[in-house]
Amino acid sequence: MNKSDFIFGIRAVIEAIEAGKDIDRVLVKKDMQGDLARELYTTLRGTQIPVQRVPVEKLNRITVKNHQGVIAFMSAVTYQHVEDLVPTLFEEGRSPFFVMLDGVTDVRNFGAIARTCDCARVDAVIIPTHDSVSAGADAMKTSAGALHTLPVCREGSLTATIKYLKQCGFRIVGATEKGRENYTQAQLSDPVCLIMGAEDTGIPAEHLALCDDWIAIPQYGHIGSLNVSVAAGILIYEVVRQRTESFSKPY
Amino acid sequence: MNKSDFIFGIRAVIEAIEAGKDIDRVLVKKDMQGDLARELYTTLRGTQIPVQRVPVEKLNRITVKNHQGVIAFMSAVTYQHVEDLVPTLFEEGRSPFFVMLDGVTDVRNFGAIARTCDCARVDAVIIPTHDSVSAGADAMKTSAGALHTLPVCREGSLTATIKYLKQCGFRIVGATEKGRENYTQAQLSDPVCLIMGAEDTGIPAEHLALCDDWIAIPQYGHIGSLNVSVAAGILIYEVVRQRTESFSKPY
Repeated sequence: MNKSDFIFGIRAVIEAIEAGKDIDRVLVKKDMQGDLARELYTTLRGTQIPVQRVPVEKLNRITVKNHQGVIAFMSAVTYQHVEDLVPTLFEEGRSPFFVMLDGVTDVRNFGAIARTCDCARVDAVIIPTHDSVSAGADAMKTSAGALHTLPVCREGSLTATIKYLKQCGFRIVGATEKGRENYTQAQLSDPVCLIMGAEDTGIPAEHLALCDDWIAIPQYGHIGSLNVSVAAGILIYEVVRQRTESFSKPY
Repeated sequence: MNKSDFIFGIRAVIEAIEAGKDIDRVLVKKDMQGDLARELYTTLRGTQIPVQRVPVEKLNRITVKNHQGVIAFMSAVTYQHVEDLVPTLFEEGRSPFFVMLDGVTDVRNFGAIARTCDCARVDAVIIPTHDSVSAGADAMKTSAGALHTLPVCREGSLTATIKYLKQCGFRIVGATEKGRENYTQAQLSDPVCLIMGAEDTGIPAEHLALCDDWIAIPQYGHIGSLNVSVAAGILIYEVVRQRTESFSKPY
């Protein structure tokens, strides 16, 4: 890891947050106390920056310098917010298309899906703040650089984001083996948010309940499930197919 | 690697070949000579088993035992031949669907494509004998076990295989960025062999020249190309889509 990939020291991290720097996550020593620590927590409150409390040994392995119990990893990606993007996309006359990764944890899958999103002109990828992939070096490499330009939205509550998108007129379409609708039969030309779930457990039940459609890719083999980045590719390009066939103007 | 994954010694390898064991490849010491060596080469002639001539140090790193200059890696896959499969498929009333990997070298891509082929009920994957991926442990893992059941054909000359398939009435469809035809417009319900090329250089020109169609997945982004296993997924499921929509009987 390059030195430039992280900063350390309570004051330095507070200043980076206040300056609006793109921070991937902050590691804090488990039992950190004191006035400066309180100031750090106050500054972090209200941001979407994930905070991990870790043993001091973990921080010591990252740097031998005086980190004061705080290290912040910088992000190669400028994270955005759905609420900032949606109005602009509608003003541009787009039928917006978002892909939400709800529990995808393999960074190579994240990178491969980001690459597909770039190719298909998906408007943004949405990931949760907590327990999620982040746009680190491996994801960046697998994305073939897509993560440098593709808007990535990091949201504290995917439930709130889904409800907001529904209010804005998006169809919420969940990819799930529980789906009885063949994906080619779903209506995907309207503004749509496609949700891809975790590699093993799929989309959480509380988010499935908010979906307008549950769609499935038909399975004819012994295995019964596709790799999530392959499944995402098939579904994303089905959106493209329907839109290029139904719109007179160029996609 | 498990002991059972390879065998060594000239006589043992000759016997394994003659017994029709599934051998992935044979490593032979570069300057091996003598009567037994000649017998080994005679036995290998006419098989589709790839032979690599390597420095003796490479063999010594694999086993400290007396390998006599020959190590054969066993295959988890029973390789088949296109000419054995085609008549059976036509007799079963199938419109056969083959996927040919013409230069794909990343074993994870091979595994992911094999997994998709299982899910979509592709009839066989075709790979070349030389300079190709083989169905080793990494490919097996990424395939989620698909390589245990999916027929894999290993052919000495892909040119000859393509010509044979054309004679049998297959459409040969090459996935290439040079293609001007959108993949959704191609006719894929007839017996078809889809060719996916190398990750970097695509399908060799001499095979492109034999294709009936050059198809492309439209690109709208900055990167301009999809990961090969994602592209294969999109194209394979387009074949499924067209066949399920055009056939009255179950796919």
